[in-house]
Amino acid sequence: MNSDFRKIPIAVIGLGLMGGSFARRLKELGHPVIGLNRTKKVAEEALAMGIVDSIDPKDLKKAEIVIFCTPERGTLSFIKEHLSLLHEKAVLTDIAGVKNGFAKEVAALLPEGMDFVSGHPMCGKEGAGLAQSDGAIFDGANYVLIPEPWNRKEHLELVKDMARELGCAHVPVVTAEDHDRAIAYTSDLTHVVATALMNSSSYSEKTKYFIGGSFRDETRVADINGKLWTSLFLSNKDKLLEEIDRFSASLSTLREAIAAGDEEEIIAFLEEAGRRRREMMHRGNS
Amino acid sequence: MNSDFRKIPIAVIGLGLMGGSFARRLKELGHPVIGLNRTKKVAEEALAMGIVDSIDPKDLKKAEIVIFCTPERGTLSFIKEHLSLLHEKAVLTDIAGVKNGFAKEVAALLPEGMDFVSGHPMCGKEGAGLAQSDGAIFDGANYVLIPEPWNRKEHLELVKDMARELGCAHVPVVTAEDHDRAIAYTSDLTHVVATALMNSSSYSEKTKYFIGGSFRDETRVADINGKLWTSLFLSNKDKLLEEIDRFSASLSTLREAIAAGDEEEIIAFLEEAGRRRREMMHRGNS
Repeated sequence: MNSDFRKIPIAVIGLGLMGGSFARRLKELGHPVIGLNRTKKVAEEALAMGIVDSIDPKDLKKAEIVIFCTPERGTLSFIKEHLSLLHEKAVLTDIAGVKNGFAKEVAALLPEGMDFVSGHPMCGKEGAGLAQSDGAIFDGANYVLIPEPWNRKEHLELVKDMARELGCAHVPVVTAEDHDRAIAYTSDLTHVVATALMNSSSYSEKTKYFIGGSFRDETRVADINGKLWTSLFLSNKDKLLEEIDRFSASLSTLREAIAAGDEEEIIAFLEEAGRRRREMMHRGNS
Repeated sequence: MNSDFRKIPIAVIGLGLMGGSFARRLKELGHPVIGLNRTKKVAEEALAMGIVDSIDPKDLKKAEIVIFCTPERGTLSFIKEHLSLLHEKAVLTDIAGVKNGFAKEVAALLPEGMDFVSGHPMCGKEGAGLAQSDGAIFDGANYVLIPEPWNRKEHLELVKDMARELGCAHVPVVTAEDHDRAIAYTSDLTHVVATALMNSSSYSEKTKYFIGGSFRDETRVADINGKLWTSLFLSNKDKLLEEIDRFSASLSTLREAIAAGDEEEIIAFLEEAGRRRREMMHRGNS
């Protein structure tokens, strides 16, 4: 990354929790930030907070990178509406949680010279909205990039550089298929499991007297945006169903060992889980 | 609690993570603390760290409360061996994770005047051993007490006072049966789920590139003491199997809704989980 990179103007579209977090961190890093939001009042708030420099669509022309923190439909309609306002060599990127075919839809809208490099920063936090945004969410996170065959190498490198500059520790590059399969396991399934734990028929008003760290941690994401996650689940449906079934098979293995009172098999199962957990966390993903 | 309570000498038997945490916090609160450990070197370490005042079994005589942070068998054999050294009106308590019948076994060993009030502080942390101990684990935690019909009211009150003094926010009192049923859901099941998530056939060395907060949090306790938890699972086996089945039923409900693409039902399921999570956390169990 050359020293000029730090001065690239960047636009952030959608100033919710994630967009606000991008804007904050990019401003801290010294980038001019153009921030737009469908509800203009939110953009005005971001301007007043000093985390964006401009909320004028005319300034989009300056932005060499445009980050979409919007739902997929919102991204497509924004591009259609504002195409003539974008920098002629703008590199667009997004943060959508499911990738299946979306990059092709965006590419179809773009003129020669522009490019769309799909991304998925694996970070976030509880809550929603600009007020909850926090530049620190990027620190040490994984920022997955999902390029398409037609993406130009230098554009991929540009988004990689940005991800590292934001503070992310790892920038793995994978196919959309591999991304969606991995996410079905590490993100969709965990939200399914957390909500299924809360909705067990064993839950009662008295449960709160018996909870320790494990129940608290495993149900943290059960306080969920129901509509958003329903749409994420359904757009990755086949892979998610497969992950639920694989998890259920793993659960059954342990259940059978417990039912049989097979001490040795239970210990082996738990120790393998511990080994995998330590291996997974080894790269500083703590 | 009267001001004298703060001066009661207290013994802690077993100076691992939990015992060490009791000793630290009790010392901070101004109690004289007698600490014993099967491996004497650990007790000597605790003495050198200044978190116990004495490691001489003769000083047990002073302790009006004796807290067992030992496995059940260790608790029984310690009592048999040291009975004559205990204060004649000592109130004994423990922290064992499963209660089923144990209080009766202890009571059978005790002379008139002594009493055993079973307890279960719902707190802890990763790791093991004295070096990991931390007095702050009690702050805001639930400290469940499981009295038996023969416990004297003032002894129950004494242990309640201690739990509050330690920093615990809530001291619910329940039967052993209710305790074991609740724990099967809130603690045994969560450890089963975390290890089953790690042991899914989908796990690979690449999983680490795709994890965010939800996968990290839901698998935190998968780095587990395999032998300890196998024994906890098996000593609460019937209730745990029931909890696995109830959880699986809840999971199936959501799976079927996803398979059917039933948007409304998925949203309702997720929103109910969110409502329950917020209700559960409402009492400041954050």
